[in-house]
Amino acid sequence: MKGKIDDTNATFLSRWLTVRGIRVWLRENVADTLADIVAAFESAASFDLGIATGGLGPTTDDLTREALAAHVGKKLAFDPVLWKQIESYISKRWVKAAGSNKRQAFTIPGAEALKNENGTAPGMWYVHEGKYFVLLPGPPLENQPMIRKALGEKLIQYDLLGGEPAAEVLRCYQIGESALADMLEDAGFQSETGYYFSQDCFVELHFSNFAGIDAGDLDLVKADGEKARRILKEHDVFFTKDAPLSKLLLDCLIAQKLTISFAESITGGQMAGEFVKNPGASKALVGGIIAYSNELKEKLLGVSSETLIRSGAVSQDTVSEMAYGLRKTTGADVCISVSGIAGPDGGSDAKPIGIVHFGFLVRDKYFHLKEIFAGTRERIIKRAIVFAFVEVLRQLAGWGPGKQ
Amino acid sequence: MKGKIDDTNATFLSRWLTVRGIRVWLRENVADTLADIVAAFESAASFDLGIATGGLGPTTDDLTREALAAHVGKKLAFDPVLWKQIESYISKRWVKAAGSNKRQAFTIPGAEALKNENGTAPGMWYVHEGKYFVLLPGPPLENQPMIRKALGEKLIQYDLLGGEPAAEVLRCYQIGESALADMLEDAGFQSETGYYFSQDCFVELHFSNFAGIDAGDLDLVKADGEKARRILKEHDVFFTKDAPLSKLLLDCLIAQKLTISFAESITGGQMAGEFVKNPGASKALVGGIIAYSNELKEKLLGVSSETLIRSGAVSQDTVSEMAYGLRKTTGADVCISVSGIAGPDGGSDAKPIGIVHFGFLVRDKYFHLKEIFAGTRERIIKRAIVFAFVEVLRQLAGWGPGKQ
Repeated sequence: MKGKIDDTNATFLSRWLTVRGIRVWLRENVADTLADIVAAFESAASFDLGIATGGLGPTTDDLTREALAAHVGKKLAFDPVLWKQIESYISKRWVKAAGSNKRQAFTIPGAEALKNENGTAPGMWYVHEGKYFVLLPGPPLENQPMIRKALGEKLIQYDLLGGEPAAEVLRCYQIGESALADMLEDAGFQSETGYYFSQDCFVELHFSNFAGIDAGDLDLVKADGEKARRILKEHDVFFTKDAPLSKLLLDCLIAQKLTISFAESITGGQMAGEFVKNPGASKALVGGIIAYSNELKEKLLGVSSETLIRSGAVSQDTVSEMAYGLRKTTGADVCISVSGIAGPDGGSDAKPIGIVHFGFLVRDKYFHLKEIFAGTRERIIKRAIVFAFVEVLRQLAGWGPGKQ
Repeated sequence: MKGKIDDTNATFLSRWLTVRGIRVWLRENVADTLADIVAAFESAASFDLGIATGGLGPTTDDLTREALAAHVGKKLAFDPVLWKQIESYISKRWVKAAGSNKRQAFTIPGAEALKNENGTAPGMWYVHEGKYFVLLPGPPLENQPMIRKALGEKLIQYDLLGGEPAAEVLRCYQIGESALADMLEDAGFQSETGYYFSQDCFVELHFSNFAGIDAGDLDLVKADGEKARRILKEHDVFFTKDAPLSKLLLDCLIAQKLTISFAESITGGQMAGEFVKNPGASKALVGGIIAYSNELKEKLLGVSSETLIRSGAVSQDTVSEMAYGLRKTTGADVCISVSGIAGPDGGSDAKPIGIVHFGFLVRDKYFHLKEIFAGTRERIIKRAIVFAFVEVLRQLAGWGPGKQ
């Protein structure tokens, strides 16, 4: 509540429940006080299922167990079986069991434990007056596996899973929400199943049977998605399905048996790093050169000192030499070079903050692009990465002519 | 609510309010229906200040304006002045104003507009029955500048800012929450101002006057922080102040006039990329080599093919040759090399998933470390980066002997 951490658990859990037909109606974050957590359970009690994450740790500021016990009017009791499991978990990791861990073996009599395979805090499943309450640990590494396994099993056991909802998602890049809305409207497209969703570097267009229409009307959702897809394609809007661009790029490279490498200045390794997040990245990635200094641009990529003096590090000429130099070194089928000014300092009238030059060598075709991105340093770097991935996907997946 | 996006706005806003002495008591995420948003305003009305983010966009699923109007029993009215500002914003960016943007010029009569310098949606400030309601746009690029400027000014104007609270934060690496708690307890340390906070790769120990103690008792908070710092230092626990490790490392390198470079295999550029997120990175970073393939390890870092055959890419010998090769190429004062197995495939009994070898060349001293990290591919990569930064900071900032 003090803004120390993004609530990624809520995102993960909401998506996990949603695709299993359980609609999420309310999410609350409350302060770490007993009264506030009890109040949250009272809110939750007006729904069928109330799930709390966090507050199962070994320290005295972890109060979720206590709060649920107070809400249902029971007293926590020490469970020796749970304690044995916790001790066994700890001993396997060759550390001494801490006295403070003992708190984690307290449970509400009648509750069912959810096994924690990645930590000491067991989860809890408790039925009270026909409502289901779930306690999950906070750390994502413990939280997510427990949701996938132990919670998944309980939801099946208690027959709480709904049918999978229909959803069509178009993830559109390099276009704004209102431009997208206008495009569809101008094409005479109207939908009662769609909504828009803006992210940092893209807009998503969702069609689902969650928007108040008849839950059985799955065909309408599909038809809306296909119609929108057709209209946007006509307008040369680049879009992908609901997966990271780097994953789609990797899949595309693997399918076409192509390799890739990166020569990065402004992005400083983040472009390759984004690519490497995907399992199997080594099937396509040869590697890359982070040529942050001019010296490395010359030494490792063969950029001539004349070019650097004449045109500067952030220029069409430099990224061209970077791309060809990268090809020479790595031999990759797709070579991307990128140089720019991320700020907050270092901009000029001629080369403002946000300017990025790209060199693309896709098989035997070379082309150069220049963009000026708005925003913070972090956002400029992010947008440059998205831009580069989009362009390569345009080339390889046969999309519109792009900007070259 | 379907788990499409992390609620980073809540994090930013909560922290921003907290350090200005405004305590955040409740955060709700609700579905995009009019009834649910109205209900959220009803919840908010039991506090002094209710802030809604998102739902000010141009599309028909953006309903926050309508919901606040319904809550306060007023009708939205078109504001020609606002519309002029929106049109002017759009025209400056050389795009045609979309018809759908017109919705954003509707406001509650009597409301004060909050200027949006980064988008089309104006924010709103509205006083109703002695309570303050604020509407902010959802996209962080619009949301955060509006909070900093327009909202900040309103809170001053209406005299709503509290005093700055006292807070001491220790960010501890490579140690668990319960081990930390035990360490303090064993040293006889007791505190009524502290709480623990687990992140992905570290635990934070907070001391603040928010935990129910007298708000005026700032000295106690400071004293608790200092005492804990002393105890943890004795135990050689590595901790930093409340800033990213990469930022602290950059500051440290600049202060000592040292340069750095990276030879990355498993981390695939993310280590340098993390470093580059910080403004001024170019003052210390020479660059790096992403030697994902063995070929590049040989070609760019001079790792011998004998070593790769004999010991493998993930080995003590390979990272040693990578580090020395990197030094030869970049001449940086600090050279870090890293090779490992991130999974989910590719592990073996001898070299399990999560194994990472590190080579450190810090000035003229070389040392090797090996770790086995648990968790997903993403987490293993993240932990490897944190581990490397911690070790270099240990060396340069004169901390304990570390693990070598």
